[in-house]
Amino acid sequence: MQVPYVYRRPLRWGDTDAAQIIYTAHYFDICMEAIEGWFINTLEVDWFALNLDLKIGTPFVHAEIDYRAPLTPRDVLTIRVDIERVGEKSLSFALHGSRENDGGAIFDGRFTCCFNDTQSFQSVPIPPSQRSRIEQYQARSRAQS
Amino acid sequence: MQVPYVYRRPLRWGDTDAAQIIYTAHYFDICMEAIEGWFINTLEVDWFALNLDLKIGTPFVHAEIDYRAPLTPRDVLTIRVDIERVGEKSLSFALHGSRENDGGAIFDGRFTCCFNDTQSFQSVPIPPSQRSRIEQYQARSRAQS
Amino acid sequence: MQVPYVYRRPLRWGDTDAAQIIYTAHYFDICMEAIEGWFINTLEVDWFALNLDLKIGTPFVHAEIDYRAPLTPRDVLTIRVDIERVGEKSLSFALHGSRENDGGAIFDGRFTCCFNDTQSFQSVPIPPSQRSRIEQYQARSRAQS
Amino acid sequence: MQVPYVYRRPLRWGDTDAAQIIYTAHYFDICMEAIEGWFINTLEVDWFALNLDLKIGTPFVHAEIDYRAPLTPRDVLTIRVDIERVGEKSLSFALHGSRENDGGAIFDGRFTCCFNDTQSFQSVPIPPSQRSRIEQYQARSRAQS
Repeated sequence: MQVPYVYRRPLRWGDTDAAQIIYTAHYFDICMEAIEGWFINTLEVDWFALNLDLKIGTPFVHAEIDYRAPLTPRDVLTIRVDIERVGEKSLSFALHGSRENDGGAIFDGRFTCCFNDTQSFQSVPIPPSQRSRIEQYQARSRAQS
Repeated sequence: MQVPYVYRRPLRWGDTDAAQIIYTAHYFDICMEAIEGWFINTLEVDWFALNLDLKIGTPFVHAEIDYRAPLTPRDVLTIRVDIERVGEKSLSFALHGSRENDGGAIFDGRFTCCFNDTQSFQSVPIPPSQRSRIEQYQARSRAQS
Repeated sequence: MQVPYVYRRPLRWGDTDAAQIIYTAHYFDICMEAIEGWFINTLEVDWFALNLDLKIGTPFVHAEIDYRAPLTPRDVLTIRVDIERVGEKSLSFALHGSRENDGGAIFDGRFTCCFNDTQSFQSVPIPPSQRSRIEQYQARSRAQS
Repeated sequence: MQVPYVYRRPLRWGDTDAAQIIYTAHYFDICMEAIEGWFINTLEVDWFALNLDLKIGTPFVHAEIDYRAPLTPRDVLTIRVDIERVGEKSLSFALHGSRENDGGAIFDGRFTCCFNDTQSFQSVPIPPSQRSRIEQYQARSRAQS
Protein backbone atom coordinates (compact mmCIF):
# COMPACT_ATOMS: atom_id res chain seq x y z
CA MET A 1 0.00 0.00 0.00
CA GLN A 2 1.51 3.27 -1.24
CA VAL A 3 0.67 6.12 1.20
CA PRO A 4 -0.20 8.70 0.05
CA TYR A 5 -1.31 7.20 -3.22
CA VAL A 6 -0.20 9.37 -6.13
CA TYR A 7 -1.51 8.79 -9.64
CA ARG A 8 0.91 9.84 -12.38
CA ARG A 9 -0.70 10.70 -15.71
CA PRO A 10 1.17 11.73 -18.85
CA LEU A 11 -1.14 13.83 -21.00
CA ARG A 12 -1.80 13.07 -24.63
CA TRP A 13 -3.07 14.57 -27.83
CA GLY A 14 -6.45 12.91 -27.30
CA ASP A 15 -6.86 14.81 -24.01
CA THR A 16 -6.70 18.24 -25.72
CA ASP A 17 -9.31 20.60 -27.14
CA ALA A 18 -9.20 23.41 -29.69
CA ALA A 19 -7.86 25.84 -27.05
CA GLN A 20 -4.74 23.63 -27.19
CA ILE A 21 -5.01 22.69 -23.52
CA ILE A 22 -6.46 19.68 -21.69
CA TYR A 23 -10.26 19.72 -22.07
CA THR A 24 -12.24 20.76 -18.95
CA ALA A 25 -14.52 17.74 -18.79
CA HIS A 26 -11.66 15.34 -19.35
CA TYR A 27 -10.26 16.00 -15.87
CA PHE A 28 -13.18 14.05 -14.44
CA ASP A 29 -12.26 10.97 -16.45
CA ILE A 30 -8.69 11.35 -15.21
CA CYS A 31 -9.86 11.78 -11.59
CA MET A 32 -11.90 8.58 -11.93
CA GLU A 33 -8.70 6.82 -13.10
CA ALA A 34 -6.92 8.21 -10.02
CA ILE A 35 -9.64 7.12 -7.59
CA GLU A 36 -9.87 3.66 -9.16
CA GLY A 37 -6.07 3.53 -8.83
CA TRP A 38 -6.49 4.34 -5.13
CA PHE A 39 -8.96 1.41 -4.76
CA ILE A 40 -6.47 -0.98 -6.39
CA ASN A 41 -3.65 0.38 -4.23
CA THR A 42 -5.52 0.48 -0.92
CA LEU A 43 -8.36 -2.03 -1.11
CA GLU A 44 -6.60 -4.32 -3.59
CA VAL A 45 -9.65 -4.48 -5.82
CA ASP A 46 -10.50 -2.67 -9.04
CA TRP A 47 -14.03 -1.42 -9.73
CA PHE A 48 -14.78 -4.16 -12.27
CA ALA A 49 -14.00 -6.99 -9.81
CA LEU A 50 -15.72 -5.07 -7.00
CA ASN A 51 -18.90 -4.77 -9.07
CA LEU A 52 -18.98 -8.12 -10.84
CA ASP A 53 -17.40 -10.45 -8.28
CA LEU A 54 -18.22 -8.85 -4.93
CA LYS A 55 -21.50 -7.31 -6.17
CA ILE A 56 -20.59 -3.98 -4.60
CA GLY A 57 -20.97 -0.76 -6.54
CA THR A 58 -19.56 2.64 -5.63
CA PRO A 59 -21.83 5.19 -7.33
CA PHE A 60 -20.66 8.78 -6.95
CA VAL A 61 -23.00 11.24 -5.29
CA HIS A 62 -20.69 14.22 -5.60
CA ALA A 63 -17.85 15.27 -7.91
CA GLU A 64 -16.19 18.68 -7.89
CA ILE A 65 -13.08 20.32 -9.27
CA ASP A 66 -11.57 23.77 -8.72
CA TYR A 67 -9.20 24.46 -11.59
CA ARG A 68 -6.04 26.46 -10.74
CA ALA A 69 -4.06 26.41 -14.00
CA PRO A 70 -4.33 24.83 -17.48
CA LEU A 71 -2.26 21.87 -18.66
CA THR A 72 -0.94 20.77 -22.03
CA PRO A 73 0.63 17.50 -23.22
CA ARG A 74 4.01 19.10 -22.42
CA ASP A 75 3.15 18.43 -18.76
CA VAL A 76 2.75 15.33 -16.66
CA LEU A 77 -0.07 15.49 -14.14
CA THR A 78 0.30 13.95 -10.69
CA ILE A 79 -2.73 13.49 -8.46
CA ARG A 80 -2.42 12.85 -4.73
CA VAL A 81 -5.47 11.06 -3.33
CA ASP A 82 -6.40 11.73 0.30
CA ILE A 83 -9.35 10.48 2.33
CA GLU A 84 -11.43 13.40 3.52
CA ARG A 85 -14.11 11.47 5.41
CA VAL A 86 -15.19 7.87 5.98
CA GLY A 87 -18.91 7.51 6.59
CA GLU A 88 -20.78 4.33 7.43
CA LYS A 89 -21.74 3.84 3.79
CA SER A 90 -19.77 6.52 1.99
CA LEU A 91 -16.24 7.62 1.28
CA SER A 92 -15.05 11.15 0.48
CA PHE A 93 -11.81 11.89 -1.33
CA ALA A 94 -9.74 15.04 -1.67
CA LEU A 95 -7.62 15.07 -4.83
CA HIS A 96 -4.77 17.46 -5.39
CA GLY A 97 -3.51 17.73 -8.95
CA SER A 98 -0.11 19.24 -9.65
CA ARG A 99 2.39 19.63 -12.48
CA GLU A 100 5.12 17.04 -12.08
CA ASN A 101 8.13 19.10 -13.11
CA ASP A 102 7.60 22.11 -10.81
CA GLY A 103 4.83 21.09 -8.39
CA GLY A 104 2.57 23.91 -9.60
CA ALA A 105 -1.07 23.55 -8.45
CA ILE A 106 -3.38 22.42 -11.23
CA PHE A 107 -6.63 21.54 -9.47
CA ASP A 108 -8.27 20.49 -6.24
CA GLY A 109 -11.10 18.01 -6.35
CA ARG A 110 -13.62 16.55 -3.93
CA PHE A 111 -15.42 13.32 -4.71
CA THR A 112 -17.85 11.23 -2.65
CA CYS A 113 -19.03 7.74 -3.45
CA CYS A 114 -21.49 5.44 -1.67
CA PHE A 115 -21.25 1.72 -1.36
CA ASN A 116 -24.24 -0.21 -2.65
CA ASP A 117 -25.47 -3.69 -3.44
CA THR A 118 -25.40 -4.01 -7.22
CA GLN A 119 -28.41 -6.36 -7.16
CA SER A 120 -30.81 -4.28 -5.06
CA PHE A 121 -29.26 -0.85 -5.71
CA GLN A 122 -29.60 -0.31 -1.91
CA SER A 123 -26.75 1.37 -0.08
CA VAL A 124 -24.73 -0.88 2.23
CA PRO A 125 -22.12 -0.33 4.96
CA ILE A 126 -18.50 -0.37 3.82
CA PRO A 127 -17.43 -4.03 4.33
CA PRO A 128 -15.29 -4.44 7.50
CA SER A 129 -12.19 -5.68 5.66
CA GLN A 130 -12.29 -2.66 3.38
CA ARG A 131 -12.98 -0.26 6.26
CA SER A 132 -9.95 -1.63 8.05
CA ARG A 133 -7.71 -0.94 5.04
CA ILE A 134 -9.16 2.57 4.64
CA GLU A 135 -8.42 3.33 8.30
CA GLN A 136 -4.90 1.99 7.88
CA TYR A 137 -4.44 4.33 4.89
CA GLN A 138 -5.69 7.26 6.96
CA ALA A 139 -3.47 6.41 9.93
CA ARG A 140 -0.36 6.15 7.78
CA SER A 141 -1.27 9.40 5.98
CA ARG A 142 -1.58 11.23 9.31
CA ALA A 143 1.67 9.76 10.59
CA GLN A 144 3.45 11.30 7.61
CA SER A 145 2.05 14.79 7.89
CA MET B 1 -33.58 33.24 -27.28
CA GLN B 2 -35.22 30.34 -25.45
CA VAL B 3 -35.72 31.19 -21.73
CA PRO B 4 -35.01 29.11 -19.75
CA TYR B 5 -32.71 27.23 -22.06
CA VAL B 6 -33.27 23.49 -21.77
CA TYR B 7 -30.86 21.01 -23.33
CA ARG B 8 -32.47 17.71 -24.31
CA ARG B 9 -30.11 14.75 -24.46
CA PRO B 10 -31.10 11.22 -25.48
CA LEU B 11 -28.69 8.77 -23.86
CA ARG B 12 -26.81 6.19 -25.84
CA TRP B 13 -24.93 2.93 -25.50
CA GLY B 14 -21.62 4.82 -25.69
CA ASP B 15 -22.60 6.77 -22.54
CA THR B 16 -22.85 3.63 -20.39
CA ASP B 17 -20.41 1.75 -18.16
CA ALA B 18 -20.25 -1.81 -16.85
CA ALA B 19 -22.75 -0.97 -14.08
CA GLN B 20 -25.23 -0.60 -16.98
CA ILE B 21 -25.91 3.04 -16.15
CA ILE B 22 -24.56 6.33 -17.53
CA TYR B 23 -20.90 6.70 -16.49
CA THR B 24 -20.20 9.22 -13.70
CA ALA B 25 -17.56 11.25 -15.52
CA HIS B 26 -19.62 11.41 -18.67
CA TYR B 27 -22.11 13.81 -17.08
CA PHE B 28 -19.45 16.50 -17.27
CA ASP B 29 -19.14 16.11 -21.03
CA ILE B 30 -22.92 16.33 -21.27
CA CYS B 31 -23.02 19.44 -19.02
CA MET B 32 -20.42 21.07 -21.29
CA GLU B 33 -22.72 20.33 -24.25
CA ALA B 34 -25.58 21.96 -22.31
CA ILE B 35 -23.58 25.07 -21.40
CA GLU B 36 -22.25 25.44 -24.95
CA GLY B 37 -25.87 25.09 -26.10
CA TRP B 38 -26.76 27.96 -23.72
CA PHE B 39 -24.03 30.12 -25.32
CA ILE B 40 -25.41 29.43 -28.80
CA ASN B 41 -28.95 30.10 -27.60
CA THR B 42 -28.23 33.23 -25.55
CA LEU B 43 -25.06 34.80 -26.90
CA GLU B 44 -25.52 33.46 -30.44
CA VAL B 45 -21.97 32.19 -30.60
CA ASP B 46 -20.53 28.71 -30.13
CA TRP B 47 -17.25 28.17 -28.27
CA PHE B 48 -15.26 27.47 -31.44
CA ALA B 49 -16.22 30.79 -33.08
CA LEU B 50 -15.83 32.59 -29.74
CA ASN B 51 -12.27 31.26 -29.38
CA LEU B 52 -11.05 31.38 -32.96
CA ASP B 53 -12.88 34.41 -34.37
CA LEU B 54 -13.43 36.65 -31.34
CA LYS B 55 -10.26 35.45 -29.54
CA ILE B 56 -12.21 35.00 -26.31
CA GLY B 57 -11.84 31.86 -24.25
CA THR B 58 -14.07 30.72 -21.40
CA PRO B 59 -11.91 28.45 -19.24
CA PHE B 60 -13.78 26.83 -16.37
CA VAL B 61 -12.55 27.49 -12.85
CA HIS B 62 -15.16 25.35 -11.14
CA ALA B 63 -17.29 22.36 -12.07
CA GLU B 64 -19.47 20.42 -9.65
CA ILE B 65 -22.27 17.87 -9.76
CA ASP B 66 -24.49 16.38 -7.05
CA TYR B 67 -25.94 13.17 -8.38
CA ARG B 68 -29.53 12.35 -7.29
CA ALA B 69 -30.37 9.21 -9.29
CA PRO B 70 -28.79 7.06 -12.00
CA LEU B 71 -29.84 7.10 -15.66
CA THR B 72 -29.84 4.51 -18.41
CA PRO B 73 -30.33 4.78 -22.20
CA ARG B 74 -34.03 4.08 -21.53
CA ASP B 75 -34.21 7.68 -20.29
CA VAL B 76 -33.91 11.07 -21.95
CA LEU B 77 -32.07 13.67 -19.89
CA THR B 78 -33.19 17.29 -19.89
CA ILE B 79 -30.95 19.98 -18.43
CA ARG B 80 -32.26 23.43 -17.50
CA VAL B 81 -29.50 26.04 -17.53
CA ASP B 82 -29.86 29.00 -15.14
CA ILE B 83 -27.49 31.87 -14.46
CA GLU B 84 -26.45 31.87 -10.84
CA ARG B 85 -24.15 34.89 -10.87
CA VAL B 86 -22.66 37.32 -13.38
CA GLY B 87 -19.30 38.71 -12.31
CA GLU B 88 -17.24 41.33 -14.10
CA LYS B 89 -15.13 38.61 -15.76
CA SER B 90 -16.91 35.40 -14.83
CA LEU B 91 -20.19 33.62 -15.27
CA SER B 92 -21.72 31.00 -12.93
CA PHE B 93 -24.32 28.52 -14.04
CA ALA B 94 -26.75 26.32 -12.12
CA LEU B 95 -27.77 23.22 -14.07
CA HIS B 96 -30.71 21.04 -13.13
CA GLY B 97 -30.84 17.64 -14.77
CA SER B 98 -34.08 15.69 -14.80
CA ARG B 99 -35.63 12.63 -16.43
CA GLU B 100 -37.83 13.72 -19.30
CA ASN B 101 -40.71 11.31 -18.88
CA ASP B 102 -41.49 11.91 -15.19
CA GLY B 103 -39.43 14.97 -14.20
CA GLY B 104 -37.46 12.98 -11.61
CA ALA B 105 -34.35 14.80 -10.32
CA ILE B 106 -31.12 13.39 -11.74
CA PHE B 107 -28.46 15.92 -10.78
CA ASP B 108 -27.73 19.49 -9.81
CA GLY B 109 -24.59 21.13 -11.13
CA ARG B 110 -22.72 24.37 -10.60
CA PHE B 111 -20.18 25.60 -13.13
CA THR B 112 -18.17 28.82 -13.33
CA CYS B 113 -16.15 30.03 -16.29
CA CYS B 114 -14.00 33.10 -16.74
CA PHE B 115 -13.61 35.15 -19.88
CA ASN B 116 -10.07 35.53 -21.15
CA ASP B 117 -8.05 36.75 -24.10
CA THR B 118 -6.90 33.64 -25.99
CA GLN B 119 -3.66 35.39 -27.06
CA SER B 120 -2.46 36.65 -23.66
CA PHE B 121 -4.35 34.13 -21.45
CA GLN B 122 -5.27 37.18 -19.30
CA SER B 123 -8.82 37.42 -17.96
CA VAL B 124 -10.99 40.11 -19.55
CA PRO B 125 -14.36 41.68 -18.73
CA ILE B 126 -17.38 40.06 -20.34
CA PRO B 127 -17.87 42.07 -23.59
CA PRO B 128 -20.75 44.60 -23.25
CA SER B 129 -22.85 43.07 -26.04
CA GLN B 130 -22.62 39.67 -24.37
CA ARG B 131 -23.30 41.10 -20.92
CA SER B 132 -26.42 42.73 -22.26
CA ARG B 133 -27.72 39.41 -23.60
CA ILE B 134 -26.90 37.64 -20.34
CA GLU B 135 -28.85 40.27 -18.38
CA GLN B 136 -31.77 39.90 -20.77
CA TYR B 137 -31.72 36.14 -20.16
CA GLN B 138 -31.72 36.72 -16.40
CA ALA B 139 -34.54 39.27 -16.55
CA ARG B 140 -36.75 36.99 -18.61
CA SER B 141 -35.95 34.04 -16.33
CA ARG B 142 -37.00 36.06 -13.27
CA ALA B 143 -40.17 37.26 -14.97
CA GLN B 144 -41.21 33.64 -15.43
CA SER B 145 -40.63 32.45 -11.91
CA MET C 1 -38.84 3.82 -40.95
CA GLN C 2 -36.75 6.55 -42.58
CA VAL C 3 -35.00 5.21 -45.76
CA PRO C 4 -32.16 5.94 -46.15
CA TYR C 5 -31.52 6.65 -42.50
CA VAL C 6 -29.44 9.83 -42.12
CA TYR C 7 -27.91 10.78 -38.78
CA ARG C 8 -27.43 14.52 -38.34
CA ARG C 9 -24.70 15.51 -35.89
CA PRO C 10 -23.83 19.10 -34.92
CA LEU C 11 -20.19 19.19 -33.82
CA ARG C 12 -19.10 20.65 -30.51
CA TRP C 13 -16.12 22.00 -28.67
CA GLY C 14 -15.75 18.69 -26.83
CA ASP C 15 -15.25 16.91 -30.18
CA THR C 16 -12.13 18.94 -31.07
CA ASP C 17 -8.42 18.45 -30.52
CA ALA C 18 -5.42 20.80 -30.42
CA ALA C 19 -5.27 20.87 -34.25
CA GLN C 20 -8.60 22.73 -33.96
CA ILE C 21 -10.47 20.09 -35.91
CA ILE C 22 -12.60 17.10 -34.91
CA TYR C 23 -10.38 14.45 -33.28
CA THR C 24 -9.63 11.38 -35.45
CA ALA C 25 -10.72 8.75 -32.93
CA HIS C 26 -13.92 10.61 -32.12
CA TYR C 27 -15.42 9.77 -35.52
CA PHE C 28 -15.81 6.19 -34.33
CA ASP C 29 -17.94 7.29 -31.36
CA ILE C 30 -20.04 9.34 -33.76
CA CYS C 31 -20.37 6.40 -36.20
CA MET C 32 -21.57 4.22 -33.30
CA GLU C 33 -24.22 6.88 -32.55
CA ALA C 34 -25.24 6.75 -36.24
CA ILE C 35 -25.45 2.95 -36.35
CA GLU C 36 -27.38 2.81 -33.07
CA GLY C 37 -29.68 5.45 -34.58
CA TRP C 38 -30.16 3.13 -37.56
CA PHE C 39 -31.17 0.27 -35.19
CA ILE C 40 -33.74 2.50 -33.49
CA ASN C 41 -35.02 3.69 -36.87
CA THR C 42 -35.13 0.33 -38.62
CA LEU C 43 -35.40 -2.37 -35.97
CA GLU C 44 -37.20 -0.15 -33.44
CA VAL C 45 -34.86 -1.16 -30.66
CA ASP C 46 -31.87 0.61 -29.13
CA TRP C 47 -28.74 -1.34 -28.12
CA PHE C 48 -29.49 -1.11 -24.39
CA ALA C 49 -32.93 -2.72 -24.73
CA LEU C 50 -31.57 -5.21 -27.28
CA ASN C 51 -28.85 -6.29 -24.83
CA LEU C 52 -30.71 -6.18 -21.53
CA ASP C 53 -34.26 -7.11 -22.53
CA LEU C 54 -33.80 -9.32 -25.61
CA LYS C 55 -30.39 -10.67 -24.46
CA ILE C 56 -28.94 -10.04 -27.91
CA GLY C 57 -25.60 -8.32 -28.30
CA THR C 58 -24.12 -6.90 -31.50
CA PRO C 59 -20.34 -6.92 -31.00
CA PHE C 60 -18.41 -5.32 -33.84
CA VAL C 61 -15.87 -7.46 -35.66
CA HIS C 62 -14.74 -4.73 -38.05
CA ALA C 63 -14.68 -0.94 -38.04
CA GLU C 64 -13.02 1.21 -40.68
CA ILE C 65 -12.98 4.82 -41.81
CA ASP C 66 -11.39 6.54 -44.81
CA TYR C 67 -11.12 10.22 -44.01
CA ARG C 68 -11.65 12.63 -46.95
CA ALA C 69 -11.59 16.08 -45.30
CA PRO C 70 -11.40 17.54 -41.78
CA LEU C 71 -14.35 19.05 -39.91
CA THR C 72 -14.69 21.77 -37.30
CA PRO C 73 -17.60 22.81 -35.07
CA ARG C 74 -18.53 25.31 -37.82
CA ASP C 75 -19.86 22.30 -39.71
CA VAL C 76 -22.75 19.91 -39.23
CA LEU C 77 -21.99 16.30 -40.12
CA THR C 78 -24.60 14.12 -41.79
CA ILE C 79 -24.09 10.37 -42.02
CA ARG C 80 -26.08 8.20 -44.41
CA VAL C 81 -26.29 4.58 -43.26
CA ASP C 82 -26.58 1.88 -45.92
CA ILE C 83 -26.62 -1.89 -45.58
CA GLU C 84 -23.72 -3.41 -47.42
CA ARG C 85 -24.37 -7.06 -46.65
CA VAL C 86 -26.71 -9.17 -44.53
CA GLY C 87 -25.18 -12.45 -43.41
CA GLU C 88 -26.87 -15.21 -41.45
CA LYS C 89 -25.42 -13.89 -38.20
CA SER C 90 -23.81 -10.60 -39.20
CA LEU C 91 -24.66 -7.22 -40.63
CA SER C 92 -22.34 -4.91 -42.60
CA PHE C 93 -22.90 -1.19 -42.91
CA ALA C 94 -21.53 1.41 -45.30
CA LEU C 95 -21.54 4.90 -43.80
CA HIS C 96 -21.08 8.04 -45.87
CA GLY C 97 -20.30 11.19 -43.92
CA SER C 98 -20.75 14.57 -45.55
CA ARG C 99 -20.80 18.26 -44.67
CA GLU C 100 -24.40 19.40 -44.38
CA ASN C 101 -24.12 22.83 -45.95
CA ASP C 102 -22.39 21.85 -49.21
CA GLY C 103 -22.51 18.05 -49.32
CA GLY C 104 -18.69 17.79 -49.34
CA ALA C 105 -17.40 14.26 -48.65
CA ILE C 106 -15.98 13.89 -45.14
CA PHE C 107 -15.51 10.15 -44.71
CA ASP C 108 -16.56 6.70 -45.80
CA GLY C 109 -16.87 3.95 -43.23
CA ARG C 110 -17.45 0.23 -43.20
CA PHE C 111 -18.62 -1.53 -40.05
CA THR C 112 -19.63 -5.14 -39.40
CA CYS C 113 -21.33 -6.48 -36.29
CA CYS C 114 -22.37 -9.99 -35.33
CA PHE C 115 -25.44 -11.00 -33.41
CA ASN C 116 -24.80 -12.99 -30.26
CA ASP C 117 -26.48 -14.36 -27.16
CA THR C 118 -25.39 -12.12 -24.27
CA GLN C 119 -25.55 -15.06 -21.84
CA SER C 120 -23.44 -17.58 -23.74
CA PHE C 121 -21.43 -15.13 -25.89
CA GLN C 122 -22.22 -17.52 -28.80
CA SER C 123 -23.16 -15.99 -32.14
CA VAL C 124 -26.80 -16.45 -33.17
CA PRO C 125 -28.77 -15.95 -36.40
CA ILE C 126 -30.38 -12.54 -36.85
CA PRO C 127 -33.91 -13.00 -35.41
CA PRO C 128 -36.54 -13.39 -38.20
CA SER C 129 -38.50 -10.28 -37.25
CA GLN C 130 -35.33 -8.19 -37.40
CA ARG C 131 -34.19 -9.79 -40.66
CA SER C 132 -37.51 -8.95 -42.19
CA ARG C 133 -37.13 -5.28 -41.27
CA ILE C 134 -33.56 -5.21 -42.56
CA GLU C 135 -34.70 -6.64 -45.90
CA GLN C 136 -37.48 -4.07 -46.05
CA TYR C 137 -34.88 -1.32 -45.49
CA GLN C 138 -32.72 -2.74 -48.28
CA ALA C 139 -35.65 -3.07 -50.69
CA ARG C 140 -36.76 0.50 -50.11
CA SER C 141 -33.18 1.74 -50.44
CA ARG C 142 -32.82 0.01 -53.81
CA ALA C 143 -36.17 1.31 -55.01
CA GLN C 144 -34.91 4.84 -54.45
CA SER C 145 -31.59 4.54 -56.23
CA MET D 1 14.46 3.49 -29.29
CA GLN D 2 12.49 0.39 -28.27
CA VAL D 3 12.10 -2.00 -31.27
CA PRO D 4 9.43 -3.19 -31.70
CA TYR D 5 7.57 -0.56 -29.75
CA VAL D 6 4.94 -2.15 -27.53
CA TYR D 7 2.30 -0.03 -25.77
CA ARG D 8 1.04 -1.55 -22.52
CA ARG D 9 -2.42 -0.44 -21.49
CA PRO D 10 -4.20 -1.51 -18.29
CA LEU D 11 -7.95 -1.29 -18.84
CA ARG D 12 -10.22 0.63 -16.54
CA TRP D 13 -13.83 1.01 -15.51
CA GLY D 14 -14.14 4.12 -17.69
CA ASP D 15 -13.26 2.02 -20.77
CA THR D 16 -16.27 -0.29 -20.35
CA ASP D 17 -19.82 -0.26 -21.67
CA ALA D 18 -23.08 -1.86 -20.55
CA ALA D 19 -22.07 -5.21 -22.13
CA GLN D 20 -19.39 -5.25 -19.40
CA ILE D 21 -16.56 -5.30 -21.91
CA ILE D 22 -14.33 -2.58 -23.39
CA TYR D 23 -16.41 -0.35 -25.66
CA THR D 24 -15.90 -0.83 -29.44
CA ALA D 25 -15.17 2.79 -30.29
CA HIS D 26 -12.77 3.17 -27.38
CA TYR D 27 -10.17 0.95 -29.07
CA PHE D 28 -9.51 3.77 -31.51
CA ASP D 29 -8.63 6.17 -28.67
CA ILE D 30 -6.31 3.51 -27.29
CA CYS D 31 -4.72 2.91 -30.72
CA MET D 32 -4.08 6.67 -31.02
CA GLU D 33 -2.32 6.49 -27.62
CA ALA D 34 -0.22 3.61 -28.96
CA ILE D 35 0.71 5.39 -32.19
CA GLU D 36 1.54 8.63 -30.36
CA GLY D 37 3.66 6.47 -28.03
CA TRP D 38 5.45 5.13 -31.11
CA PHE D 39 6.19 8.72 -32.26
CA ILE D 40 7.67 9.57 -28.84
CA ASN D 41 9.67 6.34 -28.85
CA THR D 42 10.92 6.49 -32.43
CA LEU D 43 10.87 10.12 -33.55
CA GLU D 44 11.37 11.54 -30.05
CA VAL D 45 8.53 13.98 -30.45
CA ASP D 46 4.93 13.88 -29.22
CA TRP D 47 2.06 15.11 -31.40
CA PHE D 48 1.59 18.32 -29.42
CA ALA D 49 5.20 19.44 -29.90
CA LEU D 50 5.16 18.21 -33.51
CA ASN D 51 2.08 20.35 -34.24
CA LEU D 52 2.78 23.43 -32.19
CA ASP D 53 6.58 23.68 -32.34
CA LEU D 54 7.48 22.04 -35.65
CA LYS D 55 4.20 23.04 -37.37
CA ILE D 56 3.78 19.53 -38.71
CA GLY D 57 0.46 17.74 -38.43
CA THR D 58 -0.21 14.05 -38.98
CA PRO D 59 -3.88 13.79 -39.95
CA PHE D 60 -5.12 10.24 -40.37
CA VAL D 61 -6.55 9.25 -43.74
CA HIS D 62 -7.37 5.68 -42.75
CA ALA D 63 -8.14 3.84 -39.51
CA GLU D 64 -9.27 0.24 -39.29
CA ILE D 65 -9.63 -2.48 -36.68
CA ASP D 66 -10.51 -6.17 -36.94
CA TYR D 67 -11.68 -7.33 -33.54
CA ARG D 68 -10.73 -10.91 -32.56
CA ALA D 69 -11.93 -11.16 -28.93
CA PRO D 70 -13.45 -8.91 -26.26
CA LEU D 71 -11.54 -7.49 -23.30
CA THR D 72 -12.50 -6.52 -19.77
CA PRO D 73 -10.66 -4.57 -17.05
CA ARG D 74 -9.42 -7.97 -15.78
CA ASP D 75 -7.03 -7.89 -18.75
CA VAL D 76 -4.05 -5.78 -19.71
CA LEU D 77 -3.83 -4.94 -23.39
CA THR D 78 -0.48 -4.83 -25.18
CA ILE D 79 -0.19 -3.31 -28.63
CA ARG D 80 2.79 -3.94 -30.89
CA VAL D 81 3.29 -1.15 -33.43
CA ASP D 82 4.87 -2.09 -36.77
CA ILE D 83 5.51 0.06 -39.84
CA GLU D 84 3.62 -1.32 -42.79
CA ARG D 85 4.69 1.22 -45.41
CA VAL D 86 6.60 4.49 -45.60
CA GLY D 87 5.43 6.76 -48.40
CA GLU D 88 6.91 10.09 -49.43
CA LYS D 89 4.32 11.96 -47.37
CA SER D 90 2.53 9.21 -45.48
CA LEU D 91 3.13 6.51 -42.93
CA SER D 92 1.15 3.29 -42.48
CA PHE D 93 1.08 1.31 -39.26
CA ALA D 94 0.05 -2.24 -38.45
CA LEU D 95 -1.04 -2.66 -34.84
CA HIS D 96 -1.41 -6.01 -33.16
CA GLY D 97 -3.32 -6.03 -29.89
CA SER D 98 -3.01 -8.97 -27.54
CA ARG D 99 -3.91 -9.99 -23.99
CA GLU D 100 -0.84 -9.64 -21.79
CA ASN D 101 -1.27 -12.70 -19.60
CA ASP D 102 -1.71 -15.34 -22.34
CA GLY D 103 -0.86 -13.55 -25.61
CA GLY D 104 -4.37 -14.14 -26.99
CA ALA D 105 -5.14 -12.10 -30.12
CA ILE D 106 -7.47 -9.15 -29.40
CA PHE D 107 -7.36 -7.07 -32.57
CA ASP D 108 -5.41 -6.15 -35.67
CA GLY D 109 -5.41 -2.56 -36.83
CA ARG D 110 -4.18 -0.60 -39.83
CA PHE D 111 -3.72 3.14 -39.64
CA THR D 112 -2.32 5.63 -42.16
CA CYS D 113 -1.43 9.24 -41.49
CA CYS D 114 -0.12 11.96 -43.78
CA PHE D 115 2.35 14.66 -42.89
CA ASN D 116 1.16 18.20 -43.48
CA ASP D 117 2.04 21.81 -42.83
CA THR D 118 -0.27 22.99 -40.04
CA GLN D 119 -0.34 26.53 -41.47
CA SER D 120 -1.27 25.75 -45.09
CA PHE D 121 -2.93 22.34 -44.50
CA GLN D 122 -0.88 21.15 -47.52
CA SER D 123 0.76 17.74 -47.34
CA VAL D 124 4.54 17.75 -47.05
CA PRO D 125 7.29 15.11 -47.37
CA ILE D 126 8.30 13.35 -44.17
CA PRO D 127 11.24 15.46 -42.86
CA PRO D 128 14.62 13.74 -43.57
CA SER D 129 15.60 13.43 -39.89
CA GLN D 130 12.30 11.70 -39.15
CA ARG D 131 12.51 9.49 -42.25
CA SER D 132 15.93 8.37 -41.13
CA ARG D 133 14.63 7.31 -37.74
CA ILE D 134 11.66 5.53 -39.30
CA GLU D 135 14.00 3.56 -41.57
CA GLN D 136 16.19 2.70 -38.60
CA TYR D 137 13.08 1.38 -36.80
CA GLN D 138 12.17 -0.72 -39.84
CA ALA D 139 15.70 -2.09 -40.24
CA ARG D 140 15.93 -3.12 -36.61
CA SER D 141 12.44 -4.66 -36.77
CA ARG D 142 13.44 -6.76 -39.77
CA ALA D 143 16.68 -7.82 -38.15
CA GLN D 144 14.71 -9.27 -35.27
CA SER D 145 12.20 -11.26 -37.28
